[in-house]
Amino acid sequence: MGANTFGTHFSLTTFGESHGPAIGGVIDGCPAGVVIDFKKIERELERRKTGNVTITSQRKEPDEVIYLSGIYEGKTLGTPIAFMIKNKDSRPEDYDEIKDIYRPSHADYTYQQKYGYRDYRGGGRSSARALLPCVVAGAIAKQILSIYDITIKSYVTQIGNVTKDNITENEVIELLKLVKEEGDSVGAKLRIEIDNVPLGIGEPYFKKLQSQLAHAMFSINAVKGFEYGEGFHAAAMCGSECNDTFYNDNGKIRTKTNHSGGIQGGISNGEQIYFNVAFKPIPTIMQKQMTVDCDGNELEYMAKGRHDVCVIPRVIPVVEAMTAMVILDLLHK
Amino acid sequence: MGANTFGTHFSLTTFGESHGPAIGGVIDGCPAGVVIDFKKIERELERRKTGNVTITSQRKEPDEVIYLSGIYEGKTLGTPIAFMIKNKDSRPEDYDEIKDIYRPSHADYTYQQKYGYRDYRGGGRSSARALLPCVVAGAIAKQILSIYDITIKSYVTQIGNVTKDNITENEVIELLKLVKEEGDSVGAKLRIEIDNVPLGIGEPYFKKLQSQLAHAMFSINAVKGFEYGEGFHAAAMCGSECNDTFYNDNGKIRTKTNHSGGIQGGISNGEQIYFNVAFKPIPTIMQKQMTVDCDGNELEYMAKGRHDVCVIPRVIPVVEAMTAMVILDLLHK
Amino acid sequence: MGANTFGTHFSLTTFGESHGPAIGGVIDGCPAGVVIDFKKIERELERRKTGNVTITSQRKEPDEVIYLSGIYEGKTLGTPIAFMIKNKDSRPEDYDEIKDIYRPSHADYTYQQKYGYRDYRGGGRSSARALLPCVVAGAIAKQILSIYDITIKSYVTQIGNVTKDNITENEVIELLKLVKEEGDSVGAKLRIEIDNVPLGIGEPYFKKLQSQLAHAMFSINAVKGFEYGEGFHAAAMCGSECNDTFYNDNGKIRTKTNHSGGIQGGISNGEQIYFNVAFKPIPTIMQKQMTVDCDGNELEYMAKGRHDVCVIPRVIPVVEAMTAMVILDLLHK
Amino acid sequence: MGANTFGTHFSLTTFGESHGPAIGGVIDGCPAGVVIDFKKIERELERRKTGNVTITSQRKEPDEVIYLSGIYEGKTLGTPIAFMIKNKDSRPEDYDEIKDIYRPSHADYTYQQKYGYRDYRGGGRSSARALLPCVVAGAIAKQILSIYDITIKSYVTQIGNVTKDNITENEVIELLKLVKEEGDSVGAKLRIEIDNVPLGIGEPYFKKLQSQLAHAMFSINAVKGFEYGEGFHAAAMCGSECNDTFYNDNGKIRTKTNHSGGIQGGISNGEQIYFNVAFKPIPTIMQKQMTVDCDGNELEYMAKGRHDVCVIPRVIPVVEAMTAMVILDLLHK
Repeated sequence: MGANTFGTHFSLTTFGESHGPAIGGVIDGCPAGVVIDFKKIERELERRKTGNVTITSQRKEPDEVIYLSGIYEGKTLGTPIAFMIKNKDSRPEDYDEIKDIYRPSHADYTYQQKYGYRDYRGGGRSSARALLPCVVAGAIAKQILSIYDITIKSYVTQIGNVTKDNITENEVIELLKLVKEEGDSVGAKLRIEIDNVPLGIGEPYFKKLQSQLAHAMFSINAVKGFEYGEGFHAAAMCGSECNDTFYNDNGKIRTKTNHSGGIQGGISNGEQIYFNVAFKPIPTIMQKQMTVDCDGNELEYMAKGRHDVCVIPRVIPVVEAMTAMVILDLLHK
Repeated sequence: MGANTFGTHFSLTTFGESHGPAIGGVIDGCPAGVVIDFKKIERELERRKTGNVTITSQRKEPDEVIYLSGIYEGKTLGTPIAFMIKNKDSRPEDYDEIKDIYRPSHADYTYQQKYGYRDYRGGGRSSARALLPCVVAGAIAKQILSIYDITIKSYVTQIGNVTKDNITENEVIELLKLVKEEGDSVGAKLRIEIDNVPLGIGEPYFKKLQSQLAHAMFSINAVKGFEYGEGFHAAAMCGSECNDTFYNDNGKIRTKTNHSGGIQGGISNGEQIYFNVAFKPIPTIMQKQMTVDCDGNELEYMAKGRHDVCVIPRVIPVVEAMTAMVILDLLHK
Repeated sequence: MGANTFGTHFSLTTFGESHGPAIGGVIDGCPAGVVIDFKKIERELERRKTGNVTITSQRKEPDEVIYLSGIYEGKTLGTPIAFMIKNKDSRPEDYDEIKDIYRPSHADYTYQQKYGYRDYRGGGRSSARALLPCVVAGAIAKQILSIYDITIKSYVTQIGNVTKDNITENEVIELLKLVKEEGDSVGAKLRIEIDNVPLGIGEPYFKKLQSQLAHAMFSINAVKGFEYGEGFHAAAMCGSECNDTFYNDNGKIRTKTNHSGGIQGGISNGEQIYFNVAFKPIPTIMQKQMTVDCDGNELEYMAKGRHDVCVIPRVIPVVEAMTAMVILDLLHK
Repeated sequence: MGANTFGTHFSLTTFGESHGPAIGGVIDGCPAGVVIDFKKIERELERRKTGNVTITSQRKEPDEVIYLSGIYEGKTLGTPIAFMIKNKDSRPEDYDEIKDIYRPSHADYTYQQKYGYRDYRGGGRSSARALLPCVVAGAIAKQILSIYDITIKSYVTQIGNVTKDNITENEVIELLKLVKEEGDSVGAKLRIEIDNVPLGIGEPYFKKLQSQLAHAMFSINAVKGFEYGEGFHAAAMCGSECNDTFYNDNGKIRTKTNHSGGIQGGISNGEQIYFNVAFKPIPTIMQKQMTVDCDGNELEYMAKGRHDVCVIPRVIPVVEAMTAMVILDLLHK
């Protein structure tokens, strides 16, 4: 099992560089006989693509998913589901300028050193675009989870120094416009809530529900922090305030509070599962920065073209997709 | 591969309930010919055991490690290293009282529901004691890492509402005494620094260095949050302040700042790797709490005996051990 | 890790039904910087495709491999290598007749029962065509093995009741013509020899070299037997005749005989590795056979169209490809 | 996942050198709540130990299994089941003589070269004794399989040049006595039959039932060949005689013949599963043989002490145990 496979029972193997012929994936372990709603998959990709055109990067990929196997007459066969998305607007010359430069806080330098050879165009394998296959697989996972009534919702709770329980799309756009005007980028935070996960999901000792979620989140570019339940705030708490006491809710055992975030001992306890994810600012900015080239020469570098200034809103469907895959993988264990 | 195995190239399979005959593990993938310093393993266990007797739980297990295989004449054979630690002071009657009770914010309820059957004594498999095998394997991993000059250091940076760059052992003791007096428990935060990790460690896409570290940390009881580099603080930053610009340090490419925490694109970049881990308060407190029993009856429960009031200081060698295993696993990839 | 992945360090995940849009695979773990000789890959596919047109099935797929990722400017990137081969001449109506019939000794019945739903066209996932991705990955593996001077050769040693150390291609054609005239099919046996495998390949306890080779061979359709070294003949031997005594060959330790087939204790010993594989006759024959349909009705069935009468010669590059992947996987461990 | 783990859903990690402190294993994935019949486990170990004292090696280990975890009050907890068997009569001096010698057709040479360091006593990790943990895990697997009425039977069908459908225990003893008198050893063949395996077991593409069985068998010392159904004989057959035609047996679809050995397309078809395994003669013989020592000096070597002359009858419970684990692993998939 290589490093490009995520999950065990519902697993996704991804492939693709952002400017190679295609990116895609192979889902293994999807049950047979599931009717796939292709529109729903498209909608997730649409969410990821556009964000809001005025603020996110302009590259308009149609992002059409071509299914290569595992589905026949709209139903899954139980065999591997392979799919790909062609990379349409490859103009390698756009990237000649950064061919020999290590952009600050990008993966150019570490990839070059690790592999000795890299596809520098658009970040290659380390591009955010390489997360598209996760969105497709996650959209399929979500469809299966919906059979169990399991839902995943996400809220933007921070953009730079603005924090709020739920920053609306319009507020996000306004905030990001300001950042864009300054040629800068900005970090953000998301809160994810998963409802109706049945009691008993998660495998001690090393496949605890929180371990799998954390693992999934840190697979996403720009993620710098993950916490569930009270998270970092728990460090400041006393047991008497942090403990969730049990009570009998008309025959069903529940907890009065949910500081635990729906997970105890690595296993879902039937309450809402919730967690927060923090993202760093996108490293590409419209300001001059010092850096070095492949030969070690120091030089001044400034990005060209149009770029996103925040992973929000595009990253949201990715976060939900990874979450869906984790839950389904443990559910079908 | 079951859920009780951690790691791929240097892997540990753990076993054991806290009050069963023994706990232990099997290390697979340890190279042959490594001279084992058993004293160093003992010292790590010693660090975990005592903390400070006045503040940590009194159960005094000798914690003698019995090596069953994989080592001959003090050197590793390249075959699986199995070891066990006997559980000495099992007095099941001590636990009769909690046999049918679901202690608040413990794993009693989820284990019972998931498996339908559990060893209730001392938390069974969900006990912090079940992390001992990680300390042993981590101590061996540390010895191998030291060949590469890789070191792991940890600092207590928060106990309840006291935060500081480095809370000393004496300060910890004083703080915990106060908590103990109130019959309560308290959360904490650790900062871990790993030095001299060579450039190139970490496997995109799904075995990124940060994914593996996060996965490891959330395997540890009571961990509620993990962040690396700027972590959650990055959500508040602009790209122009968060980016790490490269420079040429006498022929070696380095970064001026280290907001990235030594990892870019999932791969170590040669700078110091650092991360923070947050722990919730220990759920066992010397105060009355409401809960339910196995039949769903609500009742008042108060813990008996002596219990730790904070995962600090005992959890420190566990955190370092898991860290060591992650680094070695990726290094020997 | 799903069931459609083979190998650990050099792994192949395959996908595709014989009459779906495409078949293909994703190779994970291929080192970066390898210059790929695409002609050699084509040649292996050519070997598999044609056999001899007068005796093998006529379906003439161009079998063009489309590379989707992992290769840039002819060199591997160290990222997953995805590729696909389109299925060109899908005429589903050709298969309407067998849609509801379970062909004798085919996988129709077991797939239908296991998955509840199948792509009946041309055998779907159980078709021999689904082994094409192995040929591609194996051809890449062979190129890497050739750097180590490791070579794989195969000999047809049995076709039906004709046995010989090496049945030539012309002899094979003549034998199969006779079988074809009778509207029947026939079994066969291959001997594979691997030279220059360095001492030390194979991982006790459960990834012994022979376990991995056997596992690989039994992944190939129609394989009914595998033996290495003296194989089944060893059951008739005494230790005094079967043992391979060591001697010193000008400073190099070698064995006088090679009854062991180059493997001792699951590990290569530096001698030639050799093994035999037995294949059953292809189950599709031009004779009437009794069978049942999906509703359990008994009926007479006779195949239509043109079909191979023996897995030889087409299976040969598949056997070599799987062998190459096993050796490379253990070599790059 | 290291190389010392077998199975995925019901997995066994083994450890131990034959003359180290202990051998044993950790079973992961055993369901909770299974009442273990310890007597049955003992009986399997007894079958393996004694064979017949007049013909098998005399080393009388009590082979008492000590259970370390995963079982509480006689029932499985769903947590890892660890167990060990102490090695009692370690007298390293017995092995001083072979310390520096590479015994012909043993694993001494390959282990030494691969690991650079080995426990030479009694073969160390490559000893047949290292298969004991498989017998324990297999005995547990058998108990779970018996809930499904799945049974595993084995028949000795060849000892040297004597072949018969079922060579009785007395006949085996007589044959082996003759071999012993000559100071030689002899090969053998077993036939295994598995009844009542439900339709649908086996995971295409790379976890086919036959792949898993073959993999398991070649993990056993001395196994040189594996075939299922018609096996090597199929190479001589025509399709018209080898095909299994379907018929309707009072509403149940069955095959008239069972040349397929109960597996079609890698999946069980509901018929009896049967296969043959060939073993080479035990390499230790009471005759002088030429060999080399660690420095490459050629010398004459003759084994001392009492040794088995055939893997039969001791290997039988091992073969059945591995078979049981394979079936259970795929059944609980």
